[in-house]
Amino acid sequence: MNSTTDIEKAVIQRWNSLTKPPGSLGRLESLVRDYAVIHGTPNPPLRGKALVVFCGDHGVTEEGVSAYPREVTAQMVKNFLSGGAAISVLCRKNGIEPIIVDAGVNADPEPGVVDRKIARGTRNFAKEPAMTRAQAQQALDHGAALAAEVKTRADIVAIGEMGIGNSTSASALLCVFAGSPPEQAVGPGAGLAPEGVSHKALVIARALALHSPNPNDPVGTLAAVGGFEIAMMAGFLLGAGSHRLPVVVDGFICGSAVLAARAINPQILRCLIFSHVSAEPAHRRMLEFLGVRPLFELEMRLGEATAAALAIGLLENALALYNEMATFAQAQVSDRA
Amino acid sequence: MNSTTDIEKAVIQRWNSLTKPPGSLGRLESLVRDYAVIHGTPNPPLRGKALVVFCGDHGVTEEGVSAYPREVTAQMVKNFLSGGAAISVLCRKNGIEPIIVDAGVNADPEPGVVDRKIARGTRNFAKEPAMTRAQAQQALDHGAALAAEVKTRADIVAIGEMGIGNSTSASALLCVFAGSPPEQAVGPGAGLAPEGVSHKALVIARALALHSPNPNDPVGTLAAVGGFEIAMMAGFLLGAGSHRLPVVVDGFICGSAVLAARAINPQILRCLIFSHVSAEPAHRRMLEFLGVRPLFELEMRLGEATAAALAIGLLENALALYNEMATFAQAQVSDRA
Repeated sequence: MNSTTDIEKAVIQRWNSLTKPPGSLGRLESLVRDYAVIHGTPNPPLRGKALVVFCGDHGVTEEGVSAYPREVTAQMVKNFLSGGAAISVLCRKNGIEPIIVDAGVNADPEPGVVDRKIARGTRNFAKEPAMTRAQAQQALDHGAALAAEVKTRADIVAIGEMGIGNSTSASALLCVFAGSPPEQAVGPGAGLAPEGVSHKALVIARALALHSPNPNDPVGTLAAVGGFEIAMMAGFLLGAGSHRLPVVVDGFICGSAVLAARAINPQILRCLIFSHVSAEPAHRRMLEFLGVRPLFELEMRLGEATAAALAIGLLENALALYNEMATFAQAQVSDRA
Repeated sequence: MNSTTDIEKAVIQRWNSLTKPPGSLGRLESLVRDYAVIHGTPNPPLRGKALVVFCGDHGVTEEGVSAYPREVTAQMVKNFLSGGAAISVLCRKNGIEPIIVDAGVNADPEPGVVDRKIARGTRNFAKEPAMTRAQAQQALDHGAALAAEVKTRADIVAIGEMGIGNSTSASALLCVFAGSPPEQAVGPGAGLAPEGVSHKALVIARALALHSPNPNDPVGTLAAVGGFEIAMMAGFLLGAGSHRLPVVVDGFICGSAVLAARAINPQILRCLIFSHVSAEPAHRRMLEFLGVRPLFELEMRLGEATAAALAIGLLENALALYNEMATFAQAQVSDRA
């Protein structure tokens, strides 16, 4: 059994043998089917669960595009490691191993962090490229290597990010890869006031005019307007794709990494589970452009892989149903009339 | 601290002190707020978790309105008790106590069931009232008493149902209480083919013409076209309302019990959490009529409180975040610029 069709058939057959009307568990059924296809077996495992938060700083914060001061990135890294952040709580509660990656925080690497720092924050892409092409490639490579490592101990991984200013980078990437006009690609991020959001669109419009990033050159695009954590997430997605590691994608910033990774290898979409549509207004447009349907719509907009962690919980419930429910034959329940 | 406003303020203040942008956990924040208001404290407990499945048979199945034979109700009761049903798996997985209530199954009460049987199934409401007014009142009373009992050991309860034919009853109740035309109130239920769905609408239209149920007489309406499990759920909702026991409502059939209970006492809505909009087409209309917004939309349509059980899982995650996250002060994270 290795063709996708065979696996899908076997999963649907199992679901239909269980004591419930066919299809009545809705997206829980399709979630298990998709998860089984990624693992290449109708009996996919779910032992190790991991969650990676990619952290990095952004030079473009100089332009006043964020509601929070830049030092919050490094402070939140400490908070992740000491267990006080939202994602720390969700990892404890759901038995998920948290992995905090310093992709480019503007501070010394914190003890306990996975140190893959490319530099202490990107440059201000309103004035110059965010990073060199070599740095973008290095971030992609680190990400891919990390996916291979996580695959050795996890059957599923959620990814998310932390980086003050990174919604500006994500919006710029949406403009490049999806052709969205800046004013339709921006939003309040962590809490920018409306006039700040207009200013953010202007900053992006100017940066796009300055760099003319080419969507057919994803590495160059990441170098121009990306972020270290975004490029490393994109690399992680590419690595996960080669290793058939299912990845649960978080929100808007995470989605911008999907755009970049997909431009390098469109096949990566097959390994992804999209957790939610966030309250960031352009996220819906991004998901529509990708042609994917998320599981939740809970008006969340925190990042850190918080929605992705909840989706792992949903998957666990779905797999428990799939594995543990009685069949019509076992329970001696009559099937359809 | 006992006014609703004070509790809401205290909950929002706590959320805003935690290391995340204000409001960024979206509906997880409002869910905790609503749950706290029901409990009457900004620090609501979540120790005991219960789930009640109300089971009953329906005489209207004689009209060929269901995809499954009538005996499936009793067979599924056994399946609930032996742990093989969907809801059995979700209760085990999420540490929820399952309580299976025989409200009117057409079989001897199964050992292990909570026996509140009114009769062995309702009468065929296409030809005569489903039950007597006294039976409807008895079902309501049993339900209310059960809520008081569950309140002694649970801080939250999910409710759901099992009863072959009960979506016909639920659709009829939607017609009476919301004024929906039968053809817009029906759907495939557990899996009726399109021609069956049209027939179901016809059966309901005839029954409404026969009984002329009055929405201002909810007990009479339940007697005319209700079900024992639906009436008992309605009673449970009324009892939960008086005891401030938060109830997570499942899908379409459950929602019809809300319609009936609300016609008796509109205040009950304050104690309810709506888990999902199901794949049953008229469920969205029902929720809109009630003016409520569910948490999930996962194309589920199984009943048994399956979606409500998932919502308890979400609430647990939300409360863990609320109780365990670090504040800005504790984590020494800078607040907004």
